[in-house]
Amino acid sequence: MNTDTATDETGAHQHGYISDKDRYRNRMKRIEGQARGITKMIDDEKYCIDILTQVSALTRALQGVATGLLDDHLKHCVLDAAKQGDEDAAIAKIQEATDAINRLVRS
Amino acid sequence: MNTDTATDETGAHQHGYISDKDRYRNRMKRIEGQARGITKMIDDEKYCIDILTQVSALTRALQGVATGLLDDHLKHCVLDAAKQGDEDAAIAKIQEATDAINRLVRS
Amino acid sequence: MNTDTATDETGAHQHGYISDKDRYRNRMKRIEGQARGITKMIDDEKYCIDILTQVSALTRALQGVATGLLDDHLKHCVLDAAKQGDEDAAIAKIQEATDAINRLVRS
Amino acid sequence: MNTDTATDETGAHQHGYISDKDRYRNRMKRIEGQARGITKMIDDEKYCIDILTQVSALTRALQGVATGLLDDHLKHCVLDAAKQGDEDAAIAKIQEATDAINRLVRS
Repeated sequence: MNTDTATDETGAHQHGYISDKDRYRNRMKRIEGQARGITKMIDDEKYCIDILTQVSALTRALQGVATGLLDDHLKHCVLDAAKQGDEDAAIAKIQEATDAINRLVRS
Repeated sequence: MNTDTATDETGAHQHGYISDKDRYRNRMKRIEGQARGITKMIDDEKYCIDILTQVSALTRALQGVATGLLDDHLKHCVLDAAKQGDEDAAIAKIQEATDAINRLVRS
Repeated sequence: MNTDTATDETGAHQHGYISDKDRYRNRMKRIEGQARGITKMIDDEKYCIDILTQVSALTRALQGVATGLLDDHLKHCVLDAAKQGDEDAAIAKIQEATDAINRLVRS
Repeated sequence: MNTDTATDETGAHQHGYISDKDRYRNRMKRIEGQARGITKMIDDEKYCIDILTQVSALTRALQGVATGLLDDHLKHCVLDAAKQGDEDAAIAKIQEATDAINRLVRS
């Protein structure tokens, strides 16, 4: 049913990550589990440095999701606009990506 | 019951963040909610850039927890060791903090 | 002699940032000056925290250059490939951008 | 002449990194060279992705200087204050470190 890039049989636009939706879902479920694990470490009064190690691991997992989404955005949303000859739309979608990269690099 | 720094009435050592345990717990529960919200955005096939915005917000929230834990580690675990005249222990705890900072800055 | 993106009057391709070359050059000259300033602070034995503040400012300036270059890469190198109907080339250039973003987010 | 932490034979305080001043100086001279190298890549109109790789390498080198300075700050400025029994001064120096870590993690 998903056609992986721009337009499905009903003509609706689709986001790039949709074709990998299950994989992103699984990564986020794992991230939710990591967050709950950190809460439990606090409840159990674990050593602060050990908690920090888990916070760093969770941050890296999130950054993996973020760069994956960015890659899909560029390879699908941006390229689709470019292929349709809509340069303004492609530029606008690149600008959104750049703004997201800025937020990501600063966060 | 908590004595805020090193030793409670039973003589057991306590980590710095324990005095603020509820606050850290609340922050982590909020972070868990943010993670679930991102999973739901993927389920609902929201726009990738909007998901990225939430991922950046979640990353920042996690970094806030991390720098808070580091601050508590330094103000309690490190200072307690130093006050007890145990310089080796204080140095060891600073080294743990430095390693954690390295992981954090790189993550 | 360059083989990348826009085509100048000789038929050679140009990288996206070239149109802004003077601006990038000026930013890098300023960054060189910031680096020399930090070396001088060390020579003058300034307070470590004040040096750290300047290191953070320099890091931010560098990240501004990086996200600017990425934006130009996407808006020129990637879009030019897409406009020429060369999807494989566009995908390859996006992959290079994604790899660079990964290095940047991790650095 | 310095007024901060360890005390040298004249009774003046010294910053933690001073004992390693040459090493920090060398690292900064290398960083200056890396910055000049990036400026030259722009002058020579090198490929944007190759420039980005060098910007990431420079950023990592700077973060190495930053975490090194932080480590020295904690092991000298903070510990010296703690050893002198001046808890308020130690806490103030830790707070400076925490603020610097925040700027670093965000930058």
